[in-house]
Amino acid sequence: MSFKDWALTPPMGWNSWDCFGTSIDEETLLANAQFMAENLKEYGWQYVVCDIQWYQPTARGLYYKNFAELNMDEYSRLIPAVNRFPSSAGGKGFRPIADKIHAMGLKFGIHIMRGIPRQAVHRNTPTVTQGVTARDIAQSFSLCLWNTDMYGINCNAHGAQEYYDSIIELYASWDVDFIKCDDIANTEFKPHDPYSAEKEIEMLRKAIDKCGRNIVLSLSPGPAPIEKADHLSEHANMWRMTGDFWDDWDKLYAMFKRCESWQPYVKPGTWPDCDMIPIGTLDHHSQNGKRLTNFTHDEQITLMTLWSIFRSPLILGCHLPDCDEETLKLFTNKDVIELNQTATASRKQFENSNIICWTAESKKHRYTAVFNVGSYEIKLCESLEKLCLEGKNTTELWTKEEAEAADGKLICQIPAHGAKLFRE
Amino acid sequence: MSFKDWALTPPMGWNSWDCFGTSIDEETLLANAQFMAENLKEYGWQYVVCDIQWYQPTARGLYYKNFAELNMDEYSRLIPAVNRFPSSAGGKGFRPIADKIHAMGLKFGIHIMRGIPRQAVHRNTPTVTQGVTARDIAQSFSLCLWNTDMYGINCNAHGAQEYYDSIIELYASWDVDFIKCDDIANTEFKPHDPYSAEKEIEMLRKAIDKCGRNIVLSLSPGPAPIEKADHLSEHANMWRMTGDFWDDWDKLYAMFKRCESWQPYVKPGTWPDCDMIPIGTLDHHSQNGKRLTNFTHDEQITLMTLWSIFRSPLILGCHLPDCDEETLKLFTNKDVIELNQTATASRKQFENSNIICWTAESKKHRYTAVFNVGSYEIKLCESLEKLCLEGKNTTELWTKEEAEAADGKLICQIPAHGAKLFRE
Amino acid sequence: MSFKDWALTPPMGWNSWDCFGTSIDEETLLANAQFMAENLKEYGWQYVVCDIQWYQPTARGLYYKNFAELNMDEYSRLIPAVNRFPSSAGGKGFRPIADKIHAMGLKFGIHIMRGIPRQAVHRNTPTVTQGVTARDIAQSFSLCLWNTDMYGINCNAHGAQEYYDSIIELYASWDVDFIKCDDIANTEFKPHDPYSAEKEIEMLRKAIDKCGRNIVLSLSPGPAPIEKADHLSEHANMWRMTGDFWDDWDKLYAMFKRCESWQPYVKPGTWPDCDMIPIGTLDHHSQNGKRLTNFTHDEQITLMTLWSIFRSPLILGCHLPDCDEETLKLFTNKDVIELNQTATASRKQFENSNIICWTAESKKHRYTAVFNVGSYEIKLCESLEKLCLEGKNTTELWTKEEAEAADGKLICQIPAHGAKLFRE
Amino acid sequence: MSFKDWALTPPMGWNSWDCFGTSIDEETLLANAQFMAENLKEYGWQYVVCDIQWYQPTARGLYYKNFAELNMDEYSRLIPAVNRFPSSAGGKGFRPIADKIHAMGLKFGIHIMRGIPRQAVHRNTPTVTQGVTARDIAQSFSLCLWNTDMYGINCNAHGAQEYYDSIIELYASWDVDFIKCDDIANTEFKPHDPYSAEKEIEMLRKAIDKCGRNIVLSLSPGPAPIEKADHLSEHANMWRMTGDFWDDWDKLYAMFKRCESWQPYVKPGTWPDCDMIPIGTLDHHSQNGKRLTNFTHDEQITLMTLWSIFRSPLILGCHLPDCDEETLKLFTNKDVIELNQTATASRKQFENSNIICWTAESKKHRYTAVFNVGSYEIKLCESLEKLCLEGKNTTELWTKEEAEAADGKLICQIPAHGAKLFRE
Repeated sequence: MSFKDWALTPPMGWNSWDCFGTSIDEETLLANAQFMAENLKEYGWQYVVCDIQWYQPTARGLYYKNFAELNMDEYSRLIPAVNRFPSSAGGKGFRPIADKIHAMGLKFGIHIMRGIPRQAVHRNTPTVTQGVTARDIAQSFSLCLWNTDMYGINCNAHGAQEYYDSIIELYASWDVDFIKCDDIANTEFKPHDPYSAEKEIEMLRKAIDKCGRNIVLSLSPGPAPIEKADHLSEHANMWRMTGDFWDDWDKLYAMFKRCESWQPYVKPGTWPDCDMIPIGTLDHHSQNGKRLTNFTHDEQITLMTLWSIFRSPLILGCHLPDCDEETLKLFTNKDVIELNQTATASRKQFENSNIICWTAESKKHRYTAVFNVGSYEIKLCESLEKLCLEGKNTTELWTKEEAEAADGKLICQIPAHGAKLFRE
Repeated sequence: MSFKDWALTPPMGWNSWDCFGTSIDEETLLANAQFMAENLKEYGWQYVVCDIQWYQPTARGLYYKNFAELNMDEYSRLIPAVNRFPSSAGGKGFRPIADKIHAMGLKFGIHIMRGIPRQAVHRNTPTVTQGVTARDIAQSFSLCLWNTDMYGINCNAHGAQEYYDSIIELYASWDVDFIKCDDIANTEFKPHDPYSAEKEIEMLRKAIDKCGRNIVLSLSPGPAPIEKADHLSEHANMWRMTGDFWDDWDKLYAMFKRCESWQPYVKPGTWPDCDMIPIGTLDHHSQNGKRLTNFTHDEQITLMTLWSIFRSPLILGCHLPDCDEETLKLFTNKDVIELNQTATASRKQFENSNIICWTAESKKHRYTAVFNVGSYEIKLCESLEKLCLEGKNTTELWTKEEAEAADGKLICQIPAHGAKLFRE
Repeated sequence: MSFKDWALTPPMGWNSWDCFGTSIDEETLLANAQFMAENLKEYGWQYVVCDIQWYQPTARGLYYKNFAELNMDEYSRLIPAVNRFPSSAGGKGFRPIADKIHAMGLKFGIHIMRGIPRQAVHRNTPTVTQGVTARDIAQSFSLCLWNTDMYGINCNAHGAQEYYDSIIELYASWDVDFIKCDDIANTEFKPHDPYSAEKEIEMLRKAIDKCGRNIVLSLSPGPAPIEKADHLSEHANMWRMTGDFWDDWDKLYAMFKRCESWQPYVKPGTWPDCDMIPIGTLDHHSQNGKRLTNFTHDEQITLMTLWSIFRSPLILGCHLPDCDEETLKLFTNKDVIELNQTATASRKQFENSNIICWTAESKKHRYTAVFNVGSYEIKLCESLEKLCLEGKNTTELWTKEEAEAADGKLICQIPAHGAKLFRE
Repeated sequence: MSFKDWALTPPMGWNSWDCFGTSIDEETLLANAQFMAENLKEYGWQYVVCDIQWYQPTARGLYYKNFAELNMDEYSRLIPAVNRFPSSAGGKGFRPIADKIHAMGLKFGIHIMRGIPRQAVHRNTPTVTQGVTARDIAQSFSLCLWNTDMYGINCNAHGAQEYYDSIIELYASWDVDFIKCDDIANTEFKPHDPYSAEKEIEMLRKAIDKCGRNIVLSLSPGPAPIEKADHLSEHANMWRMTGDFWDDWDKLYAMFKRCESWQPYVKPGTWPDCDMIPIGTLDHHSQNGKRLTNFTHDEQITLMTLWSIFRSPLILGCHLPDCDEETLKLFTNKDVIELNQTATASRKQFENSNIICWTAESKKHRYTAVFNVGSYEIKLCESLEKLCLEGKNTTELWTKEEAEAADGKLICQIPAHGAKLFRE
């Protein structure tokens, strides 16, 4: 059995970053898990992922405190900040939280940074390997340009693989189901080589394969270099196609081209990732407290339709308990989720006059998504053949209305930045 | 008084090429003149232009017979083929036809090819200059790649200018009002220099300025090189911006970019020319006899709107007596013609999501044209300010309907490839 | 037997152009043949070639009279001007001259221009094909940019191949051994296609293969496009690698790169051609009467060495009877000519600090040419191995001196722009 | 008085790197100073510069021990390793060594790395500024790719300028005369901005200008970006034009182009720097113990001639006491040093056939250097005029021989990779 079998459909879940940045805590995490269990689980949502710096006691907001003291065990491994995750006290790590989430019928994930803490290197603390200290395995010039926590690891050093083994072993002992590793799919420390952490990806893969637990591996940030698509597919379950995605039309529009490029690499077990879904309330630590997504309703429809037909992982970014009725509808459309989870052969069909058309198939259905990426409402009147439809029992999946067809053409109004998703 | 005063507004008229190719004859020419006098003259249409090879007795259709015998006078000047233009018999040239057209209150134009007949060169016939034969003034390597009638003229040769003087003197004696000179604004015989006939343009200008008659000068074919815009403006009243224009959407769409580029050079007396208007019945000598234009009605509206607001010369290409009601309406919209003849400051305002917006002004009005160059109908909802409109007494000039405005926005449906032309 | 068998070694001979331009006459031609027979024949020189416009009675110098009357037979074929070639009177063509040259033990060649006389086209004279006139087979827009004699021939026209057959038949009946066809290997009438006379090359090949006489075919002018090397090799015995070559160091220096590029196509029967050798007295019709070559003696050595080791055809350009002792030595060095005629595997070995080294082999010998293309004398001290020499019995072929070698190195002084040619 | 007045002629001296790498010690440093005082001082040599990692007790050879413990004072400033520099014991720093060197009539310089020790940042040690620790002023992502000692300094941080002030104050208190700051003129941590430490150069300048001592400032490594030439000239006395220079012909040849580019920026007080001179015995800690330079004698002449006529700083790299007679001659040629120290208007005159010619002038003399960059000896025969010489009393400065001139030409043999330096 290969690691690819652990994610045969696009992973669905929630991640703490978009709303809580570096300062997620145990209570909030579990509140979101609870909401998911009660309202979303039945539709397929299952992963609850704790994002960056859970090991930093004083972290706050979307930015980082440089050189902050990190919580670390005797083998130079990061462990949860007890003030933020009280149940981790006494060396129990995330195991108590994982147990609670599992008890809700969900799965638990954590974020990690590539490498070994700089603080361990400069203190020259031990690693799990006898006689090898943090200093011995660090790659001194390899660092993350936006966060001071780590140095990269020199894959040629004695003890390097064992260090990666030791952290994964620890996380496996906490019953973690999902790891999002950051600063690894697109790095900036080596000019002209955005994929310079290639060897660390390989060490991580080996460590997970050894650990005895089926931990899904997700790589960040993006854009992952497309010329490394084969290497990515051999080492991870999902990886980011883009830089950080936020609620901005230009970023959403740019995703169409990225989806087109990455479409050949969408396969069961290995998923190019459009990034978290910034719909709902976001950024709780912004200056004005939480805020609503900037996407219009039509843009939200476009996002959900594109992520679904492209078959991206679906990872929600908002504070789930805040969800209003309308937002919840976007996340609980069974037909749309069925498309995302079961379709095959998804691909761009054509692009013409601000209309972009994607299609997919499943055993029971054929699907056609029609996007209007222009700034004006369009009255589409297009041949069914070109849209890969027959025109019989054609339903629009967001409205559940039957499509209007005449003279071999499908007719519909599509608002500016909006989409229609047909199934038959 | 400068030659620019002879065409202070964009010339309006008819040309025989689009419908009759090389084989226009006296009767057909006069039938079109007659129709113009009765139905179009009152709207401003006035030039009746006889296109290429009126000096070739056996010419037929849209192509050429290589090396055909041409009708030539004793000074190596081409004269009308008597079988096609009977009134020219006895050395009267086009004078009798010009007289008839003038009697109708219209003006008369002819087409010429740059240079001197190859037949004159190889027969070494005299020119008007004592002791100078055709051979002495021909540029042996300068020829037209698509027609065998002429060699170019070597501007440095003794007798060169006098030859151009002699032909213009002849045409002036026929009371010609308009000359369309071909193979001169974009030539192909010198690779890398499409404007290699520059000196012949200058000789032509001099000849006309000397002749004592106000003959409007039009240069073909295009695309004239934009880097020669100043030279063109100093020598001709109009010149082609494009290769031959026909009833094909791609060519019409491409004209938008050309208009944008040439807009700074649109000035009273010197007009960049979008070419003849292929609307109505065309190509009488095609295999299936005459045919109707391929442009849809919406595309015809777009063409007439663009030519008008850009302030191109308006030269009709169809067989006028065939015009149906709907076609005639396009040519007799007083408001649209007023825009073309009197507006100033015409320019592209913006381009967005397949919408292209042009504006212009006149002493009494402001004009806004909105084009949908996409393949689908658009429901435009755009701020009046961006459209340079106020929203009061705003009339659409093709339908005469009042525009719908609300909340500072103008709202209208624009069909695929169609246009709306607002005035207020 | 293929046409390639007719030139198994690089053709050696003389051509009238460099010294006599368009005005070679019978007496001068035969004087050069006589000189060749007496002084050069024994070294391998054999072709005597009459260059351009032998059919133009009033031609003079290195330029052309536009549209001059040409001497033509009843089938639109050019024939010698009797005033310049008296023995051709009475329709005998070049046969009497060919006979005399053959009697001297030499071979006879003529120059032709691609196509059919423009004068024939405009007079519409007959061709050898019943019912087909010159006008029917001319390609009206295809002409030579530097000479007014011809139009190209339209390969698709009925009678086109037969016209080429008819001229070759005529020349074969004159016992011509060599044809240099001009305006065919690099044409300028079609921008972006310097090889646009490709089809005429094919017609010429067919015509020669049919005619029953082994006529060597040489194509001009250059540079022939290297991407057409295969086509050239399938149709001609030699073709020009360059534009017109004259006695100018920059042109000679540029030949090194050309030789390097064309070296893979040097094969028995098909020879890339460095052009005529402008050494000796040249340009008899220049303003100051004949003049001596501008090449220094060292540059002459370089030219003869490069042409020889590259295995170019060797075609002399001077007035042979004027040759002084020193010049004659350059043309009668048996060892150098043996290299040119018999070597194989010639190729550039290296280039370093203004030293360019070429090598070749024959059954008996190995050859190394060392060129100093810099402006200063060089004292070469280079390893024998790098020079592909052993250092035993190494002779310099121009001086016949033994080479100096020590410590595995060859030592020699090479003057600026000069060369040494070693054999062992 | 400006900092430019502190180096009105190109600085001349010795630096420990080329021979001793990271492991120079007090005894060796003083031995070189002693040799300079006795043998070189009279020719103008004066700076004795202690290169990198004098603060690292265990440093050895040309490479670095990652994360080694550094000797640091209470304000996060690096101080000499007492085991290597015994006289620095008791907090005396380099003052005792400076005193000894000054007593010899020489000047003393040290190397520093841009920034603040990473060890200070991770230990969060104090700086001279009340309440500001190392962590507060470090730029976390700015580091040196080839050495782990430092983080860059964030110029916007409170206490940043004061930290630079504090180190310069310390060095000034040691009576340092010259600072070579490294990892500052060409950095690699910001892709696409090799000059990203621009602000740190400015802080350094300010700190020196404040300190009350005339300390010459030299920036490394290179290549400094030429588009920053003006900024460099406003902030430093010398800066590196190249990456590390070593005894390799390709690097020496490449210097010609660099000199040509940087020549306009050579001005009194601000000197583009060709880097240390790797002639003599080098690399004492190489595997095989010290080794002799790889440059041939002719290449050494070329190096000294180019550095001199370009007016580069002259900084020797060998172990001076090892110098043999021949090497010493290269460093003690009064005429050549006079050229370097006093000439003006130095510039490249021409380049032709592997000959490169530079010229310069002084109040008394004119100078012409002729380099043979080819692989073969050249017999130069070139017009005096082109060489900017008159041919009277022309002396070659390395041989002291009079130049040979005839017919307005200078004649001389120049060996491969060699040079001649003429004065008149």
